[in-house]
Amino acid sequence: LHPDDAADLVQAVDGERRESVLALLDERTGREVGALLSYAEDAAGGLMSPRYARVRPEMAVAEAVAYLRRQTREQSETVYYVFVLDESQRLLGVVSFRELFTSPPDRLVRDVMQTDVVTVVEDQDQEVVARVFREHGLLAVPVVDAERRLKGIVTVDDIVDVVQEEATEDIQKLGGMEALGTPYLRSGFGRMVRKRAGWLAALFLGEMLTATAMARYEGEIARAVVLALFVPLIISSGGNSGAQASTLVIRAMALGELRQRDWWRVVRRELATGVVLGVVLGTMGFLRIEAWQAMRPVYGEHHLALALTVAFSLVGVVAFGSLAGSLLPFLLRALRVDPASASGPFVATLVDVTGLVIYFSTAILLLSGSLL
Amino acid sequence: LHPDDAADLVQAVDGERRESVLALLDERTGREVGALLSYAEDAAGGLMSPRYARVRPEMAVAEAVAYLRRQTREQSETVYYVFVLDESQRLLGVVSFRELFTSPPDRLVRDVMQTDVVTVVEDQDQEVVARVFREHGLLAVPVVDAERRLKGIVTVDDIVDVVQEEATEDIQKLGGMEALGTPYLRSGFGRMVRKRAGWLAALFLGEMLTATAMARYEGEIARAVVLALFVPLIISSGGNSGAQASTLVIRAMALGELRQRDWWRVVRRELATGVVLGVVLGTMGFLRIEAWQAMRPVYGEHHLALALTVAFSLVGVVAFGSLAGSLLPFLLRALRVDPASASGPFVATLVDVTGLVIYFSTAILLLSGSLL
Repeated sequence: LHPDDAADLVQAVDGERRESVLALLDERTGREVGALLSYAEDAAGGLMSPRYARVRPEMAVAEAVAYLRRQTREQSETVYYVFVLDESQRLLGVVSFRELFTSPPDRLVRDVMQTDVVTVVEDQDQEVVARVFREHGLLAVPVVDAERRLKGIVTVDDIVDVVQEEATEDIQKLGGMEALGTPYLRSGFGRMVRKRAGWLAALFLGEMLTATAMARYEGEIARAVVLALFVPLIISSGGNSGAQASTLVIRAMALGELRQRDWWRVVRRELATGVVLGVVLGTMGFLRIEAWQAMRPVYGEHHLALALTVAFSLVGVVAFGSLAGSLLPFLLRALRVDPASASGPFVATLVDVTGLVIYFSTAILLLSGSLL
Repeated sequence: LHPDDAADLVQAVDGERRESVLALLDERTGREVGALLSYAEDAAGGLMSPRYARVRPEMAVAEAVAYLRRQTREQSETVYYVFVLDESQRLLGVVSFRELFTSPPDRLVRDVMQTDVVTVVEDQDQEVVARVFREHGLLAVPVVDAERRLKGIVTVDDIVDVVQEEATEDIQKLGGMEALGTPYLRSGFGRMVRKRAGWLAALFLGEMLTATAMARYEGEIARAVVLALFVPLIISSGGNSGAQASTLVIRAMALGELRQRDWWRVVRRELATGVVLGVVLGTMGFLRIEAWQAMRPVYGEHHLALALTVAFSLVGVVAFGSLAGSLLPFLLRALRVDPASASGPFVATLVDVTGLVIYFSTAILLLSGSLL
């Protein structure tokens, strides 16, 4: 068991049992694990292993190889990169095992090492660390402190888990709940209900505003019941376009493709997309009402005005959905809340209330004197 | 440029320009890239590099090391594992560079190699390959054909990209659209509209059924307009619980935590969760109506029957949402459709129609003779 995996294991057990688990480790590993536990689990320091191959810059290649041959049994994680440190553990350079192995034996390490080393700082978030790996295609990245002293290395196999875990967390948040943190079938029933009930209740509270909004238009509904028929169709379309927009923006943020300063560019783009999508759905809605009417005159003499009301409302609601869905993740990030909280259900709830107002306002505008 | 990266590049350009890109490569790389292009981009064969370090089992360790030292300049991807092959390229075993390096020089490779090698087959899907890496914590996995001949190796740094891409695809599908396939800001406007319009229009068509369902209850709404006020609240709650359930199930499937035979266990669990969540929301709905009524008598003399109608409907709708959301991914997978298509918006659309039927049926049952 390597120290970084042992530390993960210790972190997974409860406070009281930790001591007994730590007691099972040999002295050196125990010391190393203790040092790793001082880091947050999702920081670079919490991912790293303190066992790496190190040499001095003034060694000859042959000397370094002989030294590594002795070290290597216990340095198993990291044999493909060798780190060159000065006497105060500061990182001077890196040389791959292969380069060392194929260099002339009498050259100095300092002359074969690369000094342009990609590093991460010990308290950097694991998402940032994962991005560094992806951008540089590396097998291991050294973790340094503020004085550039080498504290450990993160290897790419741990990053696969990080990327997978972060995606799972984001996906569950996007589904309108808290991240479970454990595999589905191994999550207790009570725990799972709690992770879901909080958000579901919050969304329900938000959605209660739709009842309040609808109550404001009770008179209009009483006069033209036909208006009520299209309420689910219209508000769900806004929610759907909002879910698309927020999902795209949240994922692009997680991948580092969007920065906070891109918000205006994104918002303009989503508004334009929303208008186009709204025109598509509005046309479909218009045709649906006129087609039904042509077969059986269910919508009465004012069917054209009704069809136009539905069509214009759809343009407004879908465009507003895209706008709100793209803006909300930027807003949450500015407030230092995880943008993945701007889930489809959350955006839909916001858009539903506004959608009702847009729909009934359009109806009052277009149908006053006829249906209303 | 390694052959696997060169192949990715060639795959990214259009058919006609491929020839000219291929012509830029040296003869050996060109031949290797040609072989890689015959594999699907998302199969093990499409990810692998044909450049790996190989030795024969009957070599002495010293001989193998000397041989690798000559090979190693061009085998840069794979220097940490050395593959042991027989004369027909069949994979016999593996030995890490470190083991070879620290073994007595006169022992035979066959005596220091491990024969228990984790492999993947050339046409296996990249999701399966990623799972093998995660389960075994490996740096590279050999790719073999049906006769166990070594075709190439997949390295873990390519898997980080695979995991990230697969998660992005799933997230975008879960957001109710097609996967973009390109970074958000680099996706053309027309392309993005197309990827979104298809699903949005399909969802709109499905949601049109709500207008049909509502029309069936037009008489009830005309008699008790107050019923219309709670329509968005009730159907959105079903959609939200459905989105939670489908998201959890789809992600657990992608991680390999849920198999097809687990469906019954999951469905029972989700139904139980749905009932509990429904009772929570039903209670909140009941209290909301009674609290408003206590402040101002907006709901008339039959407020209690109305509150009970809303409460019971919520239990039914939320439980049905969880049930449908958990069942649908299993159904899609049985039909060989990507379960991630069972997005929140898709489940919500299904649940909306049923939700209306549940709500108005409950209303007719509880309110006949009073409000209706």
